Amino acid sequence: MNFPIGGIEERMPYPVIVAFGILKKAAAKVNIEYGLEKKIADAIMQACDDVISGKLYREGHFPLVIWQTGSGTQSNMNTNEVIANRAIQILGGKLGSKDPVHPNDHVNKSQSSNDTYPTAMHIAVAMELRDRLMPGLVALRDTLQAKSKDFERIVKIGRTHLMDAVPLTLGQEFSGYAAQLSYGVERVCATLPRLHYLALGGTAVGTGLNTRIGFAEKCAAEIAALTGIPFETAPNKFEALACHDAMVEVSGALNTIAVSLMKIANDIRLLASGPRCGLAELMLPENEPGSSIMPGKVNPTQCEALTMVAAQVMGNHVACTVGGSNGHFELNVFKPMIVSNVLRSIRLIGDGCQAFNKNCAVGIKANEVQIAKIMRESLMLVTALNPHIGYDKAAQIAKTAHKEGGNLKDTAIKLGILTAEQFDQWVKPEDMLGPK
Amino acid sequence: MNFPIGGIEERMPYPVIVAFGILKKAAAKVNIEYGLEKKIADAIMQACDDVISGKLYREGHFPLVIWQTGSGTQSNMNTNEVIANRAIQILGGKLGSKDPVHPNDHVNKSQSSNDTYPTAMHIAVAMELRDRLMPGLVALRDTLQAKSKDFERIVKIGRTHLMDAVPLTLGQEFSGYAAQLSYGVERVCATLPRLHYLALGGTAVGTGLNTRIGFAEKCAAEIAALTGIPFETAPNKFEALACHDAMVEVSGALNTIAVSLMKIANDIRLLASGPRCGLAELMLPENEPGSSIMPGKVNPTQCEALTMVAAQVMGNHVACTVGGSNGHFELNVFKPMIVSNVLRSIRLIGDGCQAFNKNCAVGIKANEVQIAKIMRESLMLVTALNPHIGYDKAAQIAKTAHKEGGNLKDTAIKLGILTAEQFDQWVKPEDMLGPK
Amino acid sequence: MNFPIGGIEERMPYPVIVAFGILKKAAAKVNIEYGLEKKIADAIMQACDDVISGKLYREGHFPLVIWQTGSGTQSNMNTNEVIANRAIQILGGKLGSKDPVHPNDHVNKSQSSNDTYPTAMHIAVAMELRDRLMPGLVALRDTLQAKSKDFERIVKIGRTHLMDAVPLTLGQEFSGYAAQLSYGVERVCATLPRLHYLALGGTAVGTGLNTRIGFAEKCAAEIAALTGIPFETAPNKFEALACHDAMVEVSGALNTIAVSLMKIANDIRLLASGPRCGLAELMLPENEPGSSIMPGKVNPTQCEALTMVAAQVMGNHVACTVGGSNGHFELNVFKPMIVSNVLRSIRLIGDGCQAFNKNCAVGIKANEVQIAKIMRESLMLVTALNPHIGYDKAAQIAKTAHKEGGNLKDTAIKLGILTAEQFDQWVKPEDMLGPK
Amino acid sequence: MNFPIGGIEERMPYPVIVAFGILKKAAAKVNIEYGLEKKIADAIMQACDDVISGKLYREGHFPLVIWQTGSGTQSNMNTNEVIANRAIQILGGKLGSKDPVHPNDHVNKSQSSNDTYPTAMHIAVAMELRDRLMPGLVALRDTLQAKSKDFERIVKIGRTHLMDAVPLTLGQEFSGYAAQLSYGVERVCATLPRLHYLALGGTAVGTGLNTRIGFAEKCAAEIAALTGIPFETAPNKFEALACHDAMVEVSGALNTIAVSLMKIANDIRLLASGPRCGLAELMLPENEPGSSIMPGKVNPTQCEALTMVAAQVMGNHVACTVGGSNGHFELNVFKPMIVSNVLRSIRLIGDGCQAFNKNCAVGIKANEVQIAKIMRESLMLVTALNPHIGYDKAAQIAKTAHKEGGNLKDTAIKLGILTAEQFDQWVKPEDMLGPK
Repeated sequence: MNFPIGGIEERMPYPVIVAFGILKKAAAKVNIEYGLEKKIADAIMQACDDVISGKLYREGHFPLVIWQTGSGTQSNMNTNEVIANRAIQILGGKLGSKDPVHPNDHVNKSQSSNDTYPTAMHIAVAMELRDRLMPGLVALRDTLQAKSKDFERIVKIGRTHLMDAVPLTLGQEFSGYAAQLSYGVERVCATLPRLHYLALGGTAVGTGLNTRIGFAEKCAAEIAALTGIPFETAPNKFEALACHDAMVEVSGALNTIAVSLMKIANDIRLLASGPRCGLAELMLPENEPGSSIMPGKVNPTQCEALTMVAAQVMGNHVACTVGGSNGHFELNVFKPMIVSNVLRSIRLIGDGCQAFNKNCAVGIKANEVQIAKIMRESLMLVTALNPHIGYDKAAQIAKTAHKEGGNLKDTAIKLGILTAEQFDQWVKPEDMLGPK
Repeated sequence: MNFPIGGIEERMPYPVIVAFGILKKAAAKVNIEYGLEKKIADAIMQACDDVISGKLYREGHFPLVIWQTGSGTQSNMNTNEVIANRAIQILGGKLGSKDPVHPNDHVNKSQSSNDTYPTAMHIAVAMELRDRLMPGLVALRDTLQAKSKDFERIVKIGRTHLMDAVPLTLGQEFSGYAAQLSYGVERVCATLPRLHYLALGGTAVGTGLNTRIGFAEKCAAEIAALTGIPFETAPNKFEALACHDAMVEVSGALNTIAVSLMKIANDIRLLASGPRCGLAELMLPENEPGSSIMPGKVNPTQCEALTMVAAQVMGNHVACTVGGSNGHFELNVFKPMIVSNVLRSIRLIGDGCQAFNKNCAVGIKANEVQIAKIMRESLMLVTALNPHIGYDKAAQIAKTAHKEGGNLKDTAIKLGILTAEQFDQWVKPEDMLGPK
Repeated sequence: MNFPIGGIEERMPYPVIVAFGILKKAAAKVNIEYGLEKKIADAIMQACDDVISGKLYREGHFPLVIWQTGSGTQSNMNTNEVIANRAIQILGGKLGSKDPVHPNDHVNKSQSSNDTYPTAMHIAVAMELRDRLMPGLVALRDTLQAKSKDFERIVKIGRTHLMDAVPLTLGQEFSGYAAQLSYGVERVCATLPRLHYLALGGTAVGTGLNTRIGFAEKCAAEIAALTGIPFETAPNKFEALACHDAMVEVSGALNTIAVSLMKIANDIRLLASGPRCGLAELMLPENEPGSSIMPGKVNPTQCEALTMVAAQVMGNHVACTVGGSNGHFELNVFKPMIVSNVLRSIRLIGDGCQAFNKNCAVGIKANEVQIAKIMRESLMLVTALNPHIGYDKAAQIAKTAHKEGGNLKDTAIKLGILTAEQFDQWVKPEDMLGPK
Repeated sequence: MNFPIGGIEERMPYPVIVAFGILKKAAAKVNIEYGLEKKIADAIMQACDDVISGKLYREGHFPLVIWQTGSGTQSNMNTNEVIANRAIQILGGKLGSKDPVHPNDHVNKSQSSNDTYPTAMHIAVAMELRDRLMPGLVALRDTLQAKSKDFERIVKIGRTHLMDAVPLTLGQEFSGYAAQLSYGVERVCATLPRLHYLALGGTAVGTGLNTRIGFAEKCAAEIAALTGIPFETAPNKFEALACHDAMVEVSGALNTIAVSLMKIANDIRLLASGPRCGLAELMLPENEPGSSIMPGKVNPTQCEALTMVAAQVMGNHVACTVGGSNGHFELNVFKPMIVSNVLRSIRLIGDGCQAFNKNCAVGIKANEVQIAKIMRESLMLVTALNPHIGYDKAAQIAKTAHKEGGNLKDTAIKLGILTAEQFDQWVKPEDMLGPK
């Protein structure tokens, strides 16, 4: 082996292997129409099922790492051989004999590493987006939306520039988080049309040399049927081999989602900061035992895991960008690196959202006492007095209260500007939550 | 001035100023419905036209730089004052008197920096995408597509891993480039739904305090009418103020386009390398005089400018990502930095594509003699013999030719495997360009 | 002009022009030893002084933008011509006549764009580091250090994971910030050895063709004398032309400083958050008038400018990285893009630190009342009881206090674990600030 | 387990575990001086040896992943427990009994997660730099230097802007690559002073609460002795816990090395492109069997693995930057993410350089026939005629030859400008390789 780079953690991502199983199965089925003996095709397809199910992966037949040929050729050949051997076994042949199933002539028929590997990239990423990213993202979004509903009557201080501002409800605040994730779902979906294009049928340089007319379209249809994802053959196979803009684009959507998650998790831990010397508006579930030194200390560890995930995804995105921009002529040779970053980002976001959702978001509680207490102390409620006593007098109250450390009501009364009754009547945070 | 950071090149981008003019005009018109005196509104709208036309910018009324408050408050206030003063002038009042047009009470009516600045960001970016990026991108795409047609019969060596591979046409190669840019157009379009959401109506924290019901929707409709872009009011104003995911998303699309341009410009300069010691398959227009030392030297300077642009856009994208991820609570305060990066990326790509298109792409010529010459020397054409003499004998020919430095035909004949007639009949690059 | 990309803000950075003036002056002086007529050399040197002083830049003689040939050839030729013309003027000749001073034969003697431009890059960056970055960085560091001293007796709550922790002094907290910037200074210095290598003498491809033995060394010595910076001739000129690793390295140091500044400015605005509903431990100078809606609102605008600068520097760094990695053979052709990013980062950090220092850092005050108040409420002081009553009873006190909302002292007494006197004797935050 | 994020490939990097073993051993030894019973300390130290040797890791005692608390608390506690249990075993106690060795009271004595984890980060990174990165980097550098010597007489065409330029030797070209890596070594070394600072002794917030005077210094000395690396206690513990600028700095050095490797590997594969339709100046070892379709095809797979590694390192660097910039107050909570990226970059570069060196660099051969052939065809040799016939006539020869496709000599003679003898005498590429 010429690439002893990194340890077991650098293995070709499992979803790529599964995707190879799917595409080889589809190709075998289509190849029957183009002369592949049905018995052989059937054995290949059965062997592919053992790839798809993970059985052959778990048995250790796919030891290759990311750091190999940039075309992923070795992974394609590895797959061809594993499938051929399994099919030979099924047909009662001798392992390694290439008879009656030949890895190149049969399993790889009408294919090339140069079109199979990018096809596997698209299949793997599209499946993981659907099966890994979306469930996590949507679950968290739904929880945040539910919290937004739960918190819709809790009026709290707003903060802009980290400074006290006019009030909003905690529900409104959470509605912003939910909206970010809803848009995140849309962002991923917006990239799918180009992700659903498959390179298969382009063979070595995109021309489709050695394939048959119709092969590409039929394979794409078969893969769509096997996965339930509307794949279609790439309108331009040269683009499909020579660049991975579609991967960079998906990675860009993941990067945007990471940006959203960083904001949300950061806000939540800041709102839950304390318990005594922070904002303390939220209470998060207490998952882990406290510090060994400091009894009672509970930390927003789920926020920390999620923000670390977000930072990692931003870095992965740059790796994809650099790899995507460095192709030459008919083939981009950063394929395993690119797809492994995209898949890792998907997995980290998907799993990260699930963990955060289950172990933190669903259990978030509002500290209503504290929320009400600090909001009432806020000087920014003075804004409500503007229409009644004018901006200047309102400012006088606010500034005096700020200087003297008093509250608005007492200060206003002390300054003789209004009565306690007037203050209570005019300064109602719950009336400051929307347009009139 | 508290922010002496950088020189004149750090000024708030001009498209933001124009966008402010548009939104202030729309707000003034809508405010008539909510009680703003028509005479004042008309004067404001007329003043806004002088912002939109660039007149007041050229006169130096917008000296602010990017590096200020992260909410862009100073730019909003600057705009309010410039417009108020110009409106006062129109109405025959005294400059600076705030009478009869008040910058806050009239020009900024029902608005806040916190919703106007992000609105201006969306307007500016959407307009620049349409007016600056798209024309450049489409012009270059069209040229590459036309070249693809022009070159459709020129058969050339394909290259994978930078090594000789089976042939394709130069037209097919260029079709890949054109496809990359067509997808680039789609990528930008895919981000627009979220870019078309406007924050206006959210005021200070997203609640819309101090606005009137309907104001947000009417303003968005007005801005849509003024720009011809289907803006609508943001469904969630909290999201619209507190984060700029939509900017990060657009930046991601620009980043993907940068990746495409890097690949295309890189390929073109490699294909044009030479004239004697490179690939020399393409001839680029000779724009600048040669080196002072080396007579006759012509360089692919347009490719260089475009690839530098691409690298810059990738960097700008990271700045957006970092800024976008660092918001707190009700307001992201990296606004001027974020929008200036997105606008710069748009401008650089748009202008860069125009310059590259005009000064390089349209003038690209194929060096057909060289293309044919080196293709004929390629050993990879041996692939065409596989069906006739088998893989093993084909390999023997290729390897012998490689070792001895001979060509395929001579070697094949010398080895007694086939005749010259057979070779000419079977090895036809023009038959290797697609599926059968 | 073949590169209409971007507007005036895209001009070649001024420090590059100054650096060209310096290197041309040095070369002219050295060239006397190699046969350049002294009268001509003197005129060139005098003309160079007008480049160095900025006179000719201000007069508009350097209109070129960043987006040109990636070697910066046009800037070298532009400089040669401007200097030649100015020297001709000095000698009473006719502008544009190339007589008696020839831009190529005299001003560019023994030089090439390929060695002058990278030399100008190194000179410009080294000078700006010394003259722009260091003063800002050191001024801010000194202020933070002075604050650390001022605040050395103010005991406050520590926060880890954003949660209350054991106490430290505000001075200790600020000492961490000062240390970050001191290390930032060291980081920049650590890159200088490679920045001080000059490419001059390599001419077109690094061989030094057309120069004379000794020219490179003498020029470097002359440039060192002119600038007071210990430049020396690059030991390997091939490296000096073909890559810009030294720029990427400097950019990496700037990136690290940006990371530090992001942390510091972020902490400061969080500590100053409030005034009522935040942490409110610090009071920042109130620079700008408050919000038009919310009287008395003051925002940490200097922190915002500085964090925006930090994000920009991180983006610039990626642009440098991408450009630096994309060279080919004997010449990297991303030179103007690379240097403009490094120079912009330097300027933004230098100016940003100066502005932040002057308008914020020097005026930071501790809100001692609030700091003492919230620290006393902290439950983490319970840690001090561990040695006296054991971890378990200490935990019981903390948890009870947390549940009931009481303070430690009352809770401890109520639980009958200790007396008021014991509590006061054992729980002394000022004794928790260091090892024993 | 609350963090089911990612699979086995997301485990806490092994070098962090080893580093924990080292620091726990050092602390145990030092703690004897501060009252820890010698018998217990000895057992702990012996148990630590089983961590350091990897024995306990291989037995599966460290199952934690990166995505946990951002302080790495769980890894510290995991380590304490594993060591305590092993020590209990050694002393004949009952596993899990915490008797006679307590994970907190004994193994973690005078420590906190907040100072141990960053200490482990520095130890792990410093050791991996020395043991993994340096050997790979230096081996490759040495090979490139040796090749530079081997190739010192092979004169070849230079290429700037990818276009033919004046000649240099292949040895000179390789000397540039060697210089890049030598500087890479220097770059890493330049970051070490700050990497050698250890946080140990800072405990929870940097004050050193619960440690004893001298503990920090003695532990650092002990760790230095155990590792042979000149670690010292961090002068400022607040900085050491609250930020990881030192990690970002190291990552910056790795990023610069990645930039170098991208350039070198890219050049090498371009120079080896062909065999017939590329530059074909170099011949690389043929490691893998050729394509299944195209007999005789050999690809620069080692260059591909190395450039993929480079892109990954650039991405990892951005993840570090983002994580490093996002700390709050007394603790940065992106620790496991940051260190795992730095360690992965080190490993990928170190292993990547070893693989590239062994399987590619040492076997690189010059294709001297091709190099000489294309150089002789170059038109840029005309530069040598400038002093003899003047620039204008030289240009005439070059341009005529370019237009007509002839060589310089024939064209010069045909134009009647000089004789064959003169040409041979004046145009000697071997005289164009340095200053005169």
